[in-house]
Amino acid sequence: MHPFRTHNCGALTAKDVGETVRLSGWVHRKRDHGGVLFVDLRDHYGITQIVADEDSPALELLDSLRVESVVTIDGEVKARDAATVNPNLPTGEIEVFARSANVQSKADELPMPVAGEQEYPEDIRLKYRFLDLRRESVHANMMLRSSVIASLRRRMNDQGFTEIQTPILTASSPEGARDYLVPSRVHPGKFYALPQAPQMFKQLLMVAGFDRYFQIAPCFRDEDARADRSPGEFYQLDFEMSFVTQDDVFDAIEPVLAGVFEEFAKGKTVTPAGEFPRIPFAEAMLKYGSDKPDLRNPIVIRDVTDEFRQSGFGLFEKIVGGGGVVRAIPAPNTADKSRKFFDDMNEWARSEGHAGLGYVTRKGGEFGGPIAKNHGPEKMAALYDALGLGPDDGMFFAAGKELQAAKLAGAARTRVAEQLDLIEQGCFRFCWIVDFPMFEYDEDLKKIDFSHNPFSMPQGEMEALESQDPLKIKAWQYDIVCNGVELSSGAIRNHRPDIMYKAFEIAGYSKEEVDENFSGMINAFKYGAPPHGGSAPGVDRIVMLLADEPNIREVVVFPMNQKAEDLMMGAPSQVSAKQLRELQIRIVEPPKSQ
Amino acid sequence: MHPFRTHNCGALTAKDVGETVRLSGWVHRKRDHGGVLFVDLRDHYGITQIVADEDSPALELLDSLRVESVVTIDGEVKARDAATVNPNLPTGEIEVFARSANVQSKADELPMPVAGEQEYPEDIRLKYRFLDLRRESVHANMMLRSSVIASLRRRMNDQGFTEIQTPILTASSPEGARDYLVPSRVHPGKFYALPQAPQMFKQLLMVAGFDRYFQIAPCFRDEDARADRSPGEFYQLDFEMSFVTQDDVFDAIEPVLAGVFEEFAKGKTVTPAGEFPRIPFAEAMLKYGSDKPDLRNPIVIRDVTDEFRQSGFGLFEKIVGGGGVVRAIPAPNTADKSRKFFDDMNEWARSEGHAGLGYVTRKGGEFGGPIAKNHGPEKMAALYDALGLGPDDGMFFAAGKELQAAKLAGAARTRVAEQLDLIEQGCFRFCWIVDFPMFEYDEDLKKIDFSHNPFSMPQGEMEALESQDPLKIKAWQYDIVCNGVELSSGAIRNHRPDIMYKAFEIAGYSKEEVDENFSGMINAFKYGAPPHGGSAPGVDRIVMLLADEPNIREVVVFPMNQKAEDLMMGAPSQVSAKQLRELQIRIVEPPKSQ
Repeated sequence: MHPFRTHNCGALTAKDVGETVRLSGWVHRKRDHGGVLFVDLRDHYGITQIVADEDSPALELLDSLRVESVVTIDGEVKARDAATVNPNLPTGEIEVFARSANVQSKADELPMPVAGEQEYPEDIRLKYRFLDLRRESVHANMMLRSSVIASLRRRMNDQGFTEIQTPILTASSPEGARDYLVPSRVHPGKFYALPQAPQMFKQLLMVAGFDRYFQIAPCFRDEDARADRSPGEFYQLDFEMSFVTQDDVFDAIEPVLAGVFEEFAKGKTVTPAGEFPRIPFAEAMLKYGSDKPDLRNPIVIRDVTDEFRQSGFGLFEKIVGGGGVVRAIPAPNTADKSRKFFDDMNEWARSEGHAGLGYVTRKGGEFGGPIAKNHGPEKMAALYDALGLGPDDGMFFAAGKELQAAKLAGAARTRVAEQLDLIEQGCFRFCWIVDFPMFEYDEDLKKIDFSHNPFSMPQGEMEALESQDPLKIKAWQYDIVCNGVELSSGAIRNHRPDIMYKAFEIAGYSKEEVDENFSGMINAFKYGAPPHGGSAPGVDRIVMLLADEPNIREVVVFPMNQKAEDLMMGAPSQVSAKQLRELQIRIVEPPKSQ
Repeated sequence: MHPFRTHNCGALTAKDVGETVRLSGWVHRKRDHGGVLFVDLRDHYGITQIVADEDSPALELLDSLRVESVVTIDGEVKARDAATVNPNLPTGEIEVFARSANVQSKADELPMPVAGEQEYPEDIRLKYRFLDLRRESVHANMMLRSSVIASLRRRMNDQGFTEIQTPILTASSPEGARDYLVPSRVHPGKFYALPQAPQMFKQLLMVAGFDRYFQIAPCFRDEDARADRSPGEFYQLDFEMSFVTQDDVFDAIEPVLAGVFEEFAKGKTVTPAGEFPRIPFAEAMLKYGSDKPDLRNPIVIRDVTDEFRQSGFGLFEKIVGGGGVVRAIPAPNTADKSRKFFDDMNEWARSEGHAGLGYVTRKGGEFGGPIAKNHGPEKMAALYDALGLGPDDGMFFAAGKELQAAKLAGAARTRVAEQLDLIEQGCFRFCWIVDFPMFEYDEDLKKIDFSHNPFSMPQGEMEALESQDPLKIKAWQYDIVCNGVELSSGAIRNHRPDIMYKAFEIAGYSKEEVDENFSGMINAFKYGAPPHGGSAPGVDRIVMLLADEPNIREVVVFPMNQKAEDLMMGAPSQVSAKQLRELQIRIVEPPKSQ
C-alpha cells in the first residue's frame, strides 16, 4: 500500500463502501459528538469525513491533534446514515472509519483560521499566505487563474500563435512608467531594467519574421499600488501579428477572449466572438461619457446642446453660447423618486468637483424642476419626444466644456444606473473602442501633440499626414473593454520610418530627436519590416472579472501589499555590504528629519 | 482581397495553379536569368518563387529592391516546368508570376546576410538579432523551443499538475549563487532579489495545499556565462508534488520527459518512460566515473584494486597499499591501434593534471606495455578473463585516491569512447542517479558536513539520523541525466523541523543558526506540512539536446553575450541621475588605475 494514500480526499463515493483505504490530508475541522470524533480531512481535491469512536485505535491521537495538522489515516469506507448524507460534498455519501492514524506534521496554534470564510486583516493574510491559500475561496481563485491561463494558451495556439519568452533583464526605456532597475556587477555603474511590457521585443519578433507571437508575459512597473494593479509585477496576454489589418487582429483575438470567458463564466452570457461592437472613440465619449463604457448599463447619453442654444434656462444658454455643450442622461421610470434622489445626484456631482448636475423630473407627463420650468414645458415635451423618453422618465444634464461635460455625463450615467439598479447582471459585455484621434491640441503648450501612442499607424498613412488637418486624423488604435474594464490597448503599429518621422514632425519633434530616443526600433525597421499590430489584454484583470473579485490580491498567489512588501518572504530587505561592494553601489542616507 | 495576402508563402501547391493570389514577405534571394527575374519570397511559413519577366509591370520595382525588403506581390500561380520543380520545397511545384508589386518596407544594405547558413561573429549576430533570427536554422530552433515548452505544459497538465506563477520580485537568499538585486524606491536602502529558482515558493505551495505544482519558471543567477548557461536568466520546468515518494516523482515525470523527447527526437530512440535506469551515486562513480554518466557510451569502468594489491607493477602496489584504488577502463578492439594512441591518452591525462594513465595493449592475446610485463602476462590474462575482455582489447588504468581515480577513469572512459567512435548515435539515454550520501567528511575542516542539499529528507528519517553512521546515510535525492547532461537535481524534501534540526546538528549547526538562516521555511512547516518532493529539469538544456546545439545562444531568442550584455537593446546601460535619486543609491567610482 502506498505510504501516504490510496485515494485523495475528494475521490471516495458510495461505490467504495467496504474498501480499506489510506488517506492523507490536513485536519480541516474536528467535532466531538460524545465519544465519537468526526474529522474533516482536507486535501487539494476535497474533504472526506473521518470517524473515530472508542473502538478506534486512532481516537486518542486524532483527538490530540490541532486543526491543520497533516495526518495519514488508514480505515474502512462506510456508508453514511441517510440522515447524515451531505449532498453538497462529492464524498458526502460516505465516511472513513479510522483504524489507525499517523501524524506527518503537527500544527502549532494558528495565527489565522483556515476553515470558514471570515474576513481577515491583509497583513496577517499576506504574512501567512501559505495558510490563507488553504482557504476554499482563495484556493479556488488560484486554480481558476491557472485554468484561465492554460485556456488562453491553448486558444492562442489554436489561432496559430507561437509563445516566445522575451528577456526579463533588459534595457531601461526613456518613456512610460518608472522602471525597476537591476545594477550590473559585470558593468559597474550600468543597470538592466525589468520590462514594463515586451513591446519592443514583440515588434522585433515581427521584424524577425515570426508571424504570430504571444506570451503570458510578466511585466514590471515601479508604480504605486491600486486595487486593480499589483505593486511590482503583473501579467498580460501579449500578442502581435504580421501582415494584418485591424480587422484581422479583432478576428484573431475575439474567439480567444469570448472563448475563455464562456469557458469560465459559470453561466453568465458573453458577447459572442465576431460580434464585439466597435465603437469609435468620439461616439463612446458622447454616448457613454467614457472610452471604457460598461455596455451592461442601458443608459445612453444624448447631446442636447442645440436644444439649449436658445433657452429660458439662462445658465445652459450661456454655456452653449460660450462653446460648451449640454449632455442629457435619461433616468428612466423615476416618477416615484423623491426630490431628494435628484438633489442627491446634484450634490454628488458637486462633491466630485463638478459645477453640478441639473435635472428634470417627470411624473405622468408633468415636468418638475427649474430647468423644465425655465426652458418651458412644451419645448421640454418636444425634446422628450425627440429623445424617445416617456411620461415617467427623469433626465439629468451635464453642461460645460465638451470633455468635462462628457466625463460628468459618463460618471452620472454609471451612478444613475447603479441607483436605479439598471446594470444588467449575469453577463460579460465586450466592445472595441476604435478610431482614437492621432493628435490633439495641447492647451497648455499651445501646440499639437500625440493624443495617445506615437507609434500607432495613422489611418490614411503618409497621405493623411501630408494632406489632412492633423486633428482630424484617426489612428489604427483600439482598446478592448469588458463590463467597463479596459483590458488593453492595442494598435496597428507604424512600421515605416518615413511615416514615423512625419508624424513626429507634426507633433513638433525633429528627425534628430526621434533618432536619439527611438533608434533601436527605427534602425530595425530599416532592414525590412512587415506591417504588424497587436494588443496585450491584462491577465490579472481577466481573472478578476471571471472570479468577480475587485482586488487583484485575490487572484495572485503571492502578492505584495500596498506598500510593495512581501510580508511572507520579507522582501524587500537589507542586503550585505559584500553584495553592494560587488555591484559598486552605495545607499544614500536620506537627510535626517529635524 | 486582403491588403497583404490571400495565402502565406508556404501554402501554394500544384492544386492552386491558375489562381490569382496575393503574397507578402521578405525578398530572400534574387536571381536574374537574362530578363527573367526570380525572387524567393519568404515569410514565417515558407518560401514561394516569384517570377517577373519583361511582360510583368513589377519587373522594374522588384529588380530595384534590396534583399530583405518586404513586398506584397499580386500574381498568378503557374506550374513550374518539370525541370525546375524543387521537390525539397512544399511550394516547389509552382511559381507566382508577378502582375504587380507593392513595397511595404525597403531594406538598407544589410550588416549580415540572412540567406545561407554561414557562420557569423557573435557580436554582429546578437546586435542584429532581428536579422539573425530570420535565418532558417535559428528560426527553426526558436520554433522548436516554443513547441517543446508547449508540449511540456500539455504533458504536465495531463499528469495533473497546475501551473502557478511565483513572484519574480522577491527576497535575497543567504545561500546559493549570487542574486540579482533590485533597489526598492518605496523602501530606500532595501532590495528585492530576482529568484535563483522558485524553490521556497514551490515548497510553500505544497504547504498551502496545492498538490501538484509546476511552472516554466524564469530563474536568475548573477554568475559568469558558460556555453550551457546564459548570463542572467534561464528557464526550468519547476515542479513539486505532495504526499509522494521518490518513486511517485519518477513515475510522474518520466512520461513527460520521455514523451517530449520522443515527440521532437526526429527519429532518435528515447529511453521509454518507466524504464529510466536508477543508478546509485556510488555505482555511477565506480562504473562511469561521474554522477552524470553518458549511457550511450558502452564502456564500463571496473575496480581492479584487489588485483594490484600484490603486483610486480610496484607503482600500483604502492598506491593500493596507501589506501588508493585502481580502476580499469577497457578499450575494446584496439589491437590495430599504434603505441602512439596509448601514449597520447597518457599524455592527455597528464595535461589534465593527473599523474598519468597506465595501459595494457593486447593483440591476438599477446599483451604489451610495462604494466602487463611487470604484473605478469598470466595474471593479466586471468584478469582479462575475469573482466570478460577479449584477445584484442586494450585497457587503461586510473590509479590514485578514490575520488581522483574515479574522475580520471570517467574522463578516460569518455575520451576512449570518442577516439574509438563508440558513442551510440541517434538516441537519448536517460537515467536517474539516486542514493546520494546525505553527509560527507570535509577533509579541510575535519568535520562532517552536508554533501549536497541539507533540505533533502534523509533515507530512514529521524531513526537513521539517531542510529546510523552519518557517512552511511543516504538522502532521498536524485538527478536526471540524459546523454551525460545533468538536466536537474531533485529531492524528497525534509518537511519535518525536528528532523531538520537533527540533520543540521550532525553537520555542526545549532538550532539557533538554523532558525536564523531558514526561519521562513521552518516556520511554515510548523503549521502542517505535507511530505513533498520535486525537481526542476532545465528547459534550455532540454531544447539544446533536442536541437543538437552545444551553445545555449542557439536556443534563446534574445540572449545576452558572454559579458552579460544585450547588444541589440544596449543593456545594461547608464540611467539618469533622477532614477538613482529616486532609488536613493549612488554609484561608487572604482579607484582609478594609475
